[in-house]
Amino acid sequence: MLKNLFGGELLARMDRAASIAAGRHSSSITVTAAVNHVAFTQPVPLGSVVTVEAAVSRAFSTSMEVFIDVWIESRFGGQRSKANEGIYTFVALDELGKPTKVPSLHPETDLEKERFAAALRRKQLSLVLAGKLNPSDATELRALFMGG
Amino acid sequence: MLKNLFGGELLARMDRAASIAAGRHSSSITVTAAVNHVAFTQPVPLGSVVTVEAAVSRAFSTSMEVFIDVWIESRFGGQRSKANEGIYTFVALDELGKPTKVPSLHPETDLEKERFAAALRRKQLSLVLAGKLNPSDATELRALFMGG
Amino acid sequence: MLKNLFGGELLARMDRAASIAAGRHSSSITVTAAVNHVAFTQPVPLGSVVTVEAAVSRAFSTSMEVFIDVWIESRFGGQRSKANEGIYTFVALDELGKPTKVPSLHPETDLEKERFAAALRRKQLSLVLAGKLNPSDATELRALFMGG
Amino acid sequence: MLKNLFGGELLARMDRAASIAAGRHSSSITVTAAVNHVAFTQPVPLGSVVTVEAAVSRAFSTSMEVFIDVWIESRFGGQRSKANEGIYTFVALDELGKPTKVPSLHPETDLEKERFAAALRRKQLSLVLAGKLNPSDATELRALFMGG
Amino acid sequence: MLKNLFGGELLARMDRAASIAAGRHSSSITVTAAVNHVAFTQPVPLGSVVTVEAAVSRAFSTSMEVFIDVWIESRFGGQRSKANEGIYTFVALDELGKPTKVPSLHPETDLEKERFAAALRRKQLSLVLAGKLNPSDATELRALFMGG
Amino acid sequence: MLKNLFGGELLARMDRAASIAAGRHSSSITVTAAVNHVAFTQPVPLGSVVTVEAAVSRAFSTSMEVFIDVWIESRFGGQRSKANEGIYTFVALDELGKPTKVPSLHPETDLEKERFAAALRRKQLSLVLAGKLNPSDATELRALFMGG
Repeated sequence: MLKNLFGGELLARMDRAASIAAGRHSSSITVTAAVNHVAFTQPVPLGSVVTVEAAVSRAFSTSMEVFIDVWIESRFGGQRSKANEGIYTFVALDELGKPTKVPSLHPETDLEKERFAAALRRKQLSLVLAGKLNPSDATELRALFMGG
Repeated sequence: MLKNLFGGELLARMDRAASIAAGRHSSSITVTAAVNHVAFTQPVPLGSVVTVEAAVSRAFSTSMEVFIDVWIESRFGGQRSKANEGIYTFVALDELGKPTKVPSLHPETDLEKERFAAALRRKQLSLVLAGKLNPSDATELRALFMGG
Repeated sequence: MLKNLFGGELLARMDRAASIAAGRHSSSITVTAAVNHVAFTQPVPLGSVVTVEAAVSRAFSTSMEVFIDVWIESRFGGQRSKANEGIYTFVALDELGKPTKVPSLHPETDLEKERFAAALRRKQLSLVLAGKLNPSDATELRALFMGG
Repeated sequence: MLKNLFGGELLARMDRAASIAAGRHSSSITVTAAVNHVAFTQPVPLGSVVTVEAAVSRAFSTSMEVFIDVWIESRFGGQRSKANEGIYTFVALDELGKPTKVPSLHPETDLEKERFAAALRRKQLSLVLAGKLNPSDATELRALFMGG
Repeated sequence: MLKNLFGGELLARMDRAASIAAGRHSSSITVTAAVNHVAFTQPVPLGSVVTVEAAVSRAFSTSMEVFIDVWIESRFGGQRSKANEGIYTFVALDELGKPTKVPSLHPETDLEKERFAAALRRKQLSLVLAGKLNPSDATELRALFMGG
Repeated sequence: MLKNLFGGELLARMDRAASIAAGRHSSSITVTAAVNHVAFTQPVPLGSVVTVEAAVSRAFSTSMEVFIDVWIESRFGGQRSKANEGIYTFVALDELGKPTKVPSLHPETDLEKERFAAALRRKQLSLVLAGKLNPSDATELRALFMGG
């Protein structure tokens, strides 16, 4: 068990990759505002080759949701498989450290469109859980729980 | 901006503290199964004294939710303030790496009771979002969205 | 043998903890002035949970003696035991890097009182060994070697 | 002030150098048993070239005292100056982890002879302070405090 | 000047990327046998996003030449530019640590073909310089110095 | 195989040692301009004592060739043996980051004289390969390939 990469080390690498994706999309300094979810589905044996792919999945006013996929393969090449995935939120800042506008994102592939749509539900959910949005206004979520 | 601690580095430290709390509660090897949520509410200036407090908030069959509070204070002492908080899930493993039973947890203080109750809602939410629980069976959550 | 934590790594962690204790007591920037003594009584197996407790044991004019206790326990919880202890001296500095006054310390528990008293003997000893105090003026120490 | 090397980092490097000296002298695995004294006389600005010189100063039955001198010079060459010095004790171990005999050391230069002689006083002092040697039997030390 | 990445740190990252490329091509454990050349054409400011691209440029009997291109861009996105390039040689090993056969490589693009051809000249040059190949047998190189 | 030091880690340490040698010779800030060659002739088992010796082998107008020898010995002392050697080029910079004059170097021992002479051949070779010197003007090299 101790021969696997610590989850925390992977969280840090995902943050670094996501931060680059957010910086490229916004052309701004960005800071991690939240980790929305990370699921570790497969341990990462030490010595594996780890590929961390991060892409902005939706841009809001001054923040961006970034989706991160982590793949592993053996040191000797071979098939790569999904190790985990995560969703982080970054905020873009101007030189004074104040939140600043972010360009909108236009999803193209099916996967991008699916993640773009889900990002809004996650945003509403997070606002509801933080008490900043009335559940009855969270239209995307109500559908989920009320079957319509 | 670059003089603050990277979010990813803090995520890794939170994982290490949470892992100790989960190991103590379960007397087992544990691995990070998920990060349910982390909110960064305040940047951490480099050179700050960082205190990471982790406590198991609820034990399920073979997993544990761990709540982590991060506090910062200046190097010269003084008032400490909340920098962020997070919720991680750990799974306990036996020597063969299979999930193993975890003792139940009995909350005592008000804060412990509140986090214990919320842990169930988070568990249901995570199952609903993963398509493993029918929303109509997520009784704790329905109340939230249907006003009863 | 190579599976234990290097002594030097532990010395560095003890320094960091002691530095926080000295900073809190003096509300100043502090620097390590000396290591008076460290005794390694038990090896620290890699993977152990290490707890480093540091407390100012006595404040002199512009310096502080800090006593550090190191405890270890297994990753799976269980009894913790003493791994080593050490005594460091820190000096408080003002913004110009000059030594600055430190508030006095008032020991309360028996252990604190014992360490507070011993700190003076250590201070005299260190002055005698450095040739800065005449042995005949080191009243605390003379008693030790002359039976009165 | 924050632009200097942390004392703790230097303690770790001194331990590594001393460990090599002890390993060479004893042809054994060695572990740090104690830090007898370290005095930081000069801060080490980040970016300095640091030279750590360690030499066994006296061998006892299964342990060795190692004297460490630390020198610094600027990145652009120039005069080097003494930054601090320290005295560590190492124990030699056999394959089972038990203390094992160490060859004796024969000092040659004046500095080596001086440190060799002082090592015995330090050994006695450390035994007296630990309550393992009667002060009246610590002949080397009595002379120091009684003027004869 | 001190705000740039150390050349040595970049050499280590290039080695890691090249090692992955060599492992994928040979499906074997590989070790670095030589660095043939690295040219640093542009400093890498700390905080830059660094992309290290490594590809096997030619396979010999049990070794591979790997060509590495390093690109940098600012943290806020923008144009990326070439920072340096390097050529490393790796050897494939079997489970006993003996050199083992490597599949041949078939270059496709113009750049791949150019690097494939140059790899042979570099191999001959390296053999000549090591005294393992008679200069008059180094046909590729003679042309270079004799105009035919 | 995985129990040996990574080649890349050694490249980084060689760079650090070479950088100190270049800084001492030039009394300037220096940056790594190129790695001319590194040959890994022997693996470095983890836990070895590694000695990295770097010396400027020839000074050109604003650059220096630095020759680096790496030796290893076991942790328990014993014979040391050559692990690898490398040749790096550094450029000296003034405060504005512009290349600045470097004092010439006068080799004394036979080994120093041999490396000093070879440094010129390597310089010419590197200029020819970069297309900055006509092969017919590379007098040192022509001799090598044309038998005089």
